[in-house]
Amino acid sequence: MGEFELIRRFFTRPVRRAVLGVGDDCALLAPAPGMQLAISSDMLVEGRHFFADVDPRRLGHKALAVNLSDLAACGARPLAFTLALSLPRADAAWAGAFADGLMALAEAHQCELIGGDTTQGPLNICITVFGEVPAGQALLRSGARAGDDIYVSGTLGEARLALEALQGHLQLPPATLAATRLRLETPTPRVALGQALRGIASSALDLSDGLLGDLGHILAQSGVGACIDTRLTSALLTAGPGLDTELLRQCTLAGGDDYELCFTAAPTLRAQVEAAAAASATPVTRIGSIEAQAGLRLLGNQGQELLQRYASFDHFSA
Amino acid sequence: MGEFELIRRFFTRPVRRAVLGVGDDCALLAPAPGMQLAISSDMLVEGRHFFADVDPRRLGHKALAVNLSDLAACGARPLAFTLALSLPRADAAWAGAFADGLMALAEAHQCELIGGDTTQGPLNICITVFGEVPAGQALLRSGARAGDDIYVSGTLGEARLALEALQGHLQLPPATLAATRLRLETPTPRVALGQALRGIASSALDLSDGLLGDLGHILAQSGVGACIDTRLTSALLTAGPGLDTELLRQCTLAGGDDYELCFTAAPTLRAQVEAAAAASATPVTRIGSIEAQAGLRLLGNQGQELLQRYASFDHFSA
Repeated sequence: MGEFELIRRFFTRPVRRAVLGVGDDCALLAPAPGMQLAISSDMLVEGRHFFADVDPRRLGHKALAVNLSDLAACGARPLAFTLALSLPRADAAWAGAFADGLMALAEAHQCELIGGDTTQGPLNICITVFGEVPAGQALLRSGARAGDDIYVSGTLGEARLALEALQGHLQLPPATLAATRLRLETPTPRVALGQALRGIASSALDLSDGLLGDLGHILAQSGVGACIDTRLTSALLTAGPGLDTELLRQCTLAGGDDYELCFTAAPTLRAQVEAAAAASATPVTRIGSIEAQAGLRLLGNQGQELLQRYASFDHFSA
Repeated sequence: MGEFELIRRFFTRPVRRAVLGVGDDCALLAPAPGMQLAISSDMLVEGRHFFADVDPRRLGHKALAVNLSDLAACGARPLAFTLALSLPRADAAWAGAFADGLMALAEAHQCELIGGDTTQGPLNICITVFGEVPAGQALLRSGARAGDDIYVSGTLGEARLALEALQGHLQLPPATLAATRLRLETPTPRVALGQALRGIASSALDLSDGLLGDLGHILAQSGVGACIDTRLTSALLTAGPGLDTELLRQCTLAGGDDYELCFTAAPTLRAQVEAAAAASATPVTRIGSIEAQAGLRLLGNQGQELLQRYASFDHFSA
């Protein structure tokens, strides 16, 4: 047995939900009657999505977390996933730690590994995740209506702050760096909140590239515009004293790698949104509203319209 | 819009079978009542699974073909797939040709692209494919019984011959190289045969690493042994005169990259196997039989037992 075959065994676990798991040509899943299968694929590449020296346990967590976050954004309950892993060397210590981080998150969400592929090559992780959602109840990007409130879960911008510090662009106090780095390297997929928002949110997505850029997808697919009030978003990042206010605003509005949910709901449903947040133990903050006219307006500290546009993650450091 | 975003658009097509396709956080699939979903993931890495200068149209074909071959091995009907693609550069000509080859095969099998990911990084293609199979009817590796016949579809070894020639290990006449190279670069997934074998084959898998190595998976999972008669397998590779008989035998028994089906069936079902082959217009050849005692025996030209073991693809050139 080759070493890659040994490593493959780290990822072979018995399945409880799937009809058939790892070890045949295909895995077999049987969604319950009336359920639709929600499916998402994300590929993580060394140097682009993570640093070469990242803790493999955290990388295992993140690789699944970003996929679970897509299920959360659809309001789906996680069921299973496949893992395709390309490794430069058959490094059992690395692979074992990666598997530990991956499987701990998988078990926390009762999401089982049902298949995959392990090969030699530049470090690359591709996960495809499967969830189930009652037919017709998936949260989509296309449902926002003029007048809806806009919300985000949790906090925004810490991951970007950590990234900037790790790249040497700014200095953070050690405790702040450790805390923000945890957010960058072990994001929390908002799985319970997504399911609690079924029937309440009119649209939703998860924030991977930055709030304003990602919100743009909801606006485009719903054919609407939006107004975001930075007096409300400023509460989303309180990373401690000594940091430039404008930098914090950039990280909040366009930081990326947050894996929080952004969603819209009719103002008549504010109590239900609060109840969903409480039931899933996930803080949510109302940050603006959907408008009929296309475009994204930003309000400043005095309620004035800000002319500056905040670009998405890709262009932040350009 | 960035160039990678443009390339992403090559892969955005309207869906007819899926509830929701490319463009939201998840795709949505609703398997028909009574059907199970068959799922398989394969990752193709430059330098390991294909040469850097391969025709991108052929690479697009092969990336999906090797996944459809897994569905075929389970007897599943293709439904949909996701594509995660890492590209060193946003090369629109390359990506367009890749998409052409990929989509032509997808349309031939009515298998639609429902989601995925495009990113910058070393060339890496990860496809996860979805098919449907009536509950309980999937062809597994674990069903072979002592006395069953062993069959393979099509021919075996041309892909390996082409690989050896392309690596400079042997010379082939130009016409032979072109023909064998087509087998290496554009394998034919035996999708119709796989479905026709439901209820007939006792076990099945697809041949990616070489006949004897892959057959070993059926033997291990079924708890049986096998006897293969090289007087029967010799008909599987007729690559022309001037090639060493022993080389041809190695390519046939352990070549790899064939993407033919290997399956077992009770001798009482020979007429049904022939009918399935005819209905799917796929030649099949009986090459041996399953035995109760563990181990894999090989019979030579005079029916004598060959002591030599033929290793699998990975070790062939070692």
